[in-house]
Amino acid sequence: MRKVTLGLANSLDSFIARKDSGSDWLHWNNEVAAISARFMKTVDVLVMGRKTYEVMLAAGETSYPGATNYVFTRSAKKAAALRKRVGKKANVQIVSDDAATFVGQLKSTTGKGIVVFGGGKLAGSLFNADLIDEVVLNVHPVILGSGIPLFPEIERQINLELFEVKRLKNSCIVLSYRIQR
Amino acid sequence: MRKVTLGLANSLDSFIARKDSGSDWLHWNNEVAAISARFMKTVDVLVMGRKTYEVMLAAGETSYPGATNYVFTRSAKKAAALRKRVGKKANVQIVSDDAATFVGQLKSTTGKGIVVFGGGKLAGSLFNADLIDEVVLNVHPVILGSGIPLFPEIERQINLELFEVKRLKNSCIVLSYRIQR
Repeated sequence: MRKVTLGLANSLDSFIARKDSGSDWLHWNNEVAAISARFMKTVDVLVMGRKTYEVMLAAGETSYPGATNYVFTRSAKKAAALRKRVGKKANVQIVSDDAATFVGQLKSTTGKGIVVFGGGKLAGSLFNADLIDEVVLNVHPVILGSGIPLFPEIERQINLELFEVKRLKNSCIVLSYRIQR
Repeated sequence: MRKVTLGLANSLDSFIARKDSGSDWLHWNNEVAAISARFMKTVDVLVMGRKTYEVMLAAGETSYPGATNYVFTRSAKKAAALRKRVGKKANVQIVSDDAATFVGQLKSTTGKGIVVFGGGKLAGSLFNADLIDEVVLNVHPVILGSGIPLFPEIERQINLELFEVKRLKNSCIVLSYRIQR
């Protein structure tokens, strides 16, 4: 079974974006880039929800290189619109199947790790299907007060083991947890 | 001006208690006790909301020794009921005045530090009045999925500087932040 890692950045009060999806409070720097690049060598599949992908598109990126990028949306209409917008890319697939079933099947194939980008509904459904093995959070030094919650749809308690801590120079801290089963 | 520190324990998804106020997921051990005891020597005032105090009472404690304990409730009726229940204690005061005004006045008196126990409404009103200087979170290795949120009533973005990290053996991590003004 491949390892599935949920990787995201969040505020100290556990939001992944402002209410209007704003992410201007996120810090990006060489330290984060190095951690991210090292981690991305361990995966060859990246899964994300439509909203996270829209943020990526808005930043001018259509895919993360070196991995197959699966973008999930339950709406066939939105899927078609996205496919049209992105065009044919060898490493991008817009999927409107059930994410948990799809990722469960991917997980049982052979390959490197699978990374889930972003929290929200997709992360919730994968947690609920017990498909997540590790969670890596880049906790940012800010209280937003309101926003889009980190884990909005978790239906049960998930116990974790902290296995790595990286304190960054910019007051961010990267916490890596293993899910306890 | 005295330093006001908000100290609390939270889940990784930023809840301070289950929906039913349950705190069975909180770990307490010698490491936490040592950190707490060292910190409590730096304060002589402890402020908390009624709900936090009810949890303390349920645990068989009427006050934290070595500090004046102020318990806030906006309801005069609940304040009277609490006073009756607790009885006369030299170091406990049940206050139904506006918490932000009261703590603002305490902060300008001479003395050691002031600690705010617990998050919730009290913490929110003190943040909104810009009275908090530091936040110390004991982040627990658990995703609860739902519960009472850490900072429910913050009206503006609060920027922080991470100045201390203590990783505990039980997968908890204590993060100390200074508010950036």
